[in-house]
Amino acid sequence: KVNGDRLWDSLMEMAKIGPGIAGGNNRQTVTDEDGEGRALFQSWCEAVGCKMGLDQMGNMFATYPGSDPEALPVYVGSHLDTQPTGGKYDGVLGVLGGLEILRTMKDLGIKTKHPIVVTNWTNEEGTRYAPAMLSSGVFAGIHTQEWAYEREDSEGKKFGDELARIGWRGDEEVGARKMHAFFELHIEQGPILEAEGKDIGVVTHGQGLSWTQVTIEGKDSHTGSTPMPMRKNAGLGMARVLEKVDEIAWSHAPHAVGAAGHIDVYPNSRNVIPGKVVFTVDFRSPELAVIEDMEARLKVEGQKIADDMGLTISFEKVGGFDPVAFDDGCVSAVRSAAERLGYTHRDLISGAGHDACWINQVAPTAMVMCPCVDGLSHNEAEEISRQWAAAGADVLLHAVLETAEI
Amino acid sequence: KVNGDRLWDSLMEMAKIGPGIAGGNNRQTVTDEDGEGRALFQSWCEAVGCKMGLDQMGNMFATYPGSDPEALPVYVGSHLDTQPTGGKYDGVLGVLGGLEILRTMKDLGIKTKHPIVVTNWTNEEGTRYAPAMLSSGVFAGIHTQEWAYEREDSEGKKFGDELARIGWRGDEEVGARKMHAFFELHIEQGPILEAEGKDIGVVTHGQGLSWTQVTIEGKDSHTGSTPMPMRKNAGLGMARVLEKVDEIAWSHAPHAVGAAGHIDVYPNSRNVIPGKVVFTVDFRSPELAVIEDMEARLKVEGQKIADDMGLTISFEKVGGFDPVAFDDGCVSAVRSAAERLGYTHRDLISGAGHDACWINQVAPTAMVMCPCVDGLSHNEAEEISRQWAAAGADVLLHAVLETAEI
Ligand SMILES: NC(=O)NCCC(=O)O
Ligand SMILES: NC(=O)NCCC(=O)O
Repeated sequence: KVNGDRLWDSLMEMAKIGPGIAGGNNRQTVTDEDGEGRALFQSWCEAVGCKMGLDQMGNMFATYPGSDPEALPVYVGSHLDTQPTGGKYDGVLGVLGGLEILRTMKDLGIKTKHPIVVTNWTNEEGTRYAPAMLSSGVFAGIHTQEWAYEREDSEGKKFGDELARIGWRGDEEVGARKMHAFFELHIEQGPILEAEGKDIGVVTHGQGLSWTQVTIEGKDSHTGSTPMPMRKNAGLGMARVLEKVDEIAWSHAPHAVGAAGHIDVYPNSRNVIPGKVVFTVDFRSPELAVIEDMEARLKVEGQKIADDMGLTISFEKVGGFDPVAFDDGCVSAVRSAAERLGYTHRDLISGAGHDACWINQVAPTAMVMCPCVDGLSHNEAEEISRQWAAAGADVLLHAVLETAEI
Repeated sequence: KVNGDRLWDSLMEMAKIGPGIAGGNNRQTVTDEDGEGRALFQSWCEAVGCKMGLDQMGNMFATYPGSDPEALPVYVGSHLDTQPTGGKYDGVLGVLGGLEILRTMKDLGIKTKHPIVVTNWTNEEGTRYAPAMLSSGVFAGIHTQEWAYEREDSEGKKFGDELARIGWRGDEEVGARKMHAFFELHIEQGPILEAEGKDIGVVTHGQGLSWTQVTIEGKDSHTGSTPMPMRKNAGLGMARVLEKVDEIAWSHAPHAVGAAGHIDVYPNSRNVIPGKVVFTVDFRSPELAVIEDMEARLKVEGQKIADDMGLTISFEKVGGFDPVAFDDGCVSAVRSAAERLGYTHRDLISGAGHDACWINQVAPTAMVMCPCVDGLSHNEAEEISRQWAAAGADVLLHAVLETAEI
């Protein structure tokens, strides 16, 4: 078993970097705080005797050698970046859980045939730079590196430039590494495990995601002196589309969800009827056909609303991935590890996207989940218990040891 | 008659300061650009032989002496600040139109009994600092100066500090000046004069305004892994309230308007269900009872929506004024000036708020309006013709000369 207290202490230590305003974290990707978090992680990895690799997307790879120099490594990891008002565990648990299994192996003098590599994937959250899971996506060949470098944040700063600025743009070619397997430990971010009192979620599938950026244009004009029939209120158009997004998602419940988290209104002045709004609709489902149906209906319903109101509307897909089925062998390794350790468990479909969803395309992959309080995530109040974290890391350790051949 | 070309040239000269991105202006209140515009205006006033007064709210007063040192001055003016994506005429025409009548009087050697003072009121637009017409409001005793100084922009910078920073916080006590009368020339910002082919609007009334800042709170959580029934989506709550705002305003049409121009969503991340939204509802009507009804219904309907969705909602009045009836004598002076000059005219109710609405509480006041293309204002594409501007300034000149006793 891992040392749960040491894992917890490291989680709390990392959480001191980029503190939030309500007990959580604001350590967004390729910010100075991200750089600080990376340096701390690197120093911990070096203390266990790992060598750190760094690729051109800033992905970090801490290698713990195996006994067979020819054997492909088993990778474990997740991400250290957070939401602007994020929690202390989303992503971080997976990276520091990986580190904890190396520390445990060192303590116990365990050596595997395959090397073990702990990774930190850059920009998993996708808040500052859409899409989410950007760098694991480049690693898996989904996006080109050039395209990723050109992504812009809301201030127009480019991802590639910011990565270089914080000093974490490495030399290694992205995606050149070959993996024996990949495992990711993550908090559930949903309510099922806690509600059912289970210690461990064995993630068999991930639901798919579609991000559509919607732009509605009307005409900015005076809120006081523009008669009601002459208005082209892009803000009101958005309100009607948001209502449809909710209706469309509910029509597929419980097999779909939908909402808009990002909304920008222009010129955003109290006495100017909004001339333009830009917002991103997030639709998800474990079924590809459902996602496709929701995307199509958004376009039809949105166009109808715009036409009725004399507005223009356009749709741009800014992120997404198809539903994922994880590797049977890796999933079994997770399930039998939980079983062996005596932890209660159930199979789960991940509601969120994860780096594992992309890596699954290039290596046998599976995920371990632990419960979180009230299913709450992407909120500073995100919380887990020391025991839940330790159980998750225990299962990760055993699944990895089995796969890496002790 | 005034020199229309000279007036136009000055308008174009002023528009070079704080240019917009689409042909209009971004010269928001108490910014560096505002300071530059003020300095240009002062230099022009001094060239006509005026002395500039400056009060503690940054209101500017350029005095053109009369023949009777005991007579109270006749004031004319408006504001030089603009919307973030504003036009070249909203406010500016009234200030430079006032300057043009002084230039014309000087050319023609006209002397009146009452001195004439051209004013620039600080922060009329209310975008950077709510409420609108802030400094004419302090002048008229509606707000205290201390309260005005404490207003904060979206970055937390205080009005009083910014006014001092740009160097335009004067010593003169605010509201100490007594006025014989006040006249304000302004573009209509609505479609009526152009549609009816009238040169001049004789403003008899101004509609009242109510700004209610609405805060809806839910719970920020993950857009992917939070099941639909567990969501507390403050953004969706806002969408429903915006639909009600429209419905409430239409229920009183054509005697009311309503919209929300300002909308902020938190944390504004693509994969976080909005936990909080703040937006400002702008309701207007020429009838006080209608405004009160709309405010009351917003609260009832908003509360109902929030209760149904498990959200909390709160309402704060951040600006407003009652419908205004301008002074009969001043209104007659405007109407008969238009008549005498042979301009077509009609009586108007102002759809927008103006500094004249507050000054009307402390001095006999009236307004002159000229048409604007498509009734469009609070838009960089705001446009008027050279002839419309000149006709407005002609009527202003004659109304002022009559009132100031030639
Ligand atoms: N796990 C997680 O929150 N990932 C961010 C990408 C997503 O929105 O699902
Ligand atoms: N004239 C004008 O646009 N004033 C701003 C205050 C208002 O919103 O009516």
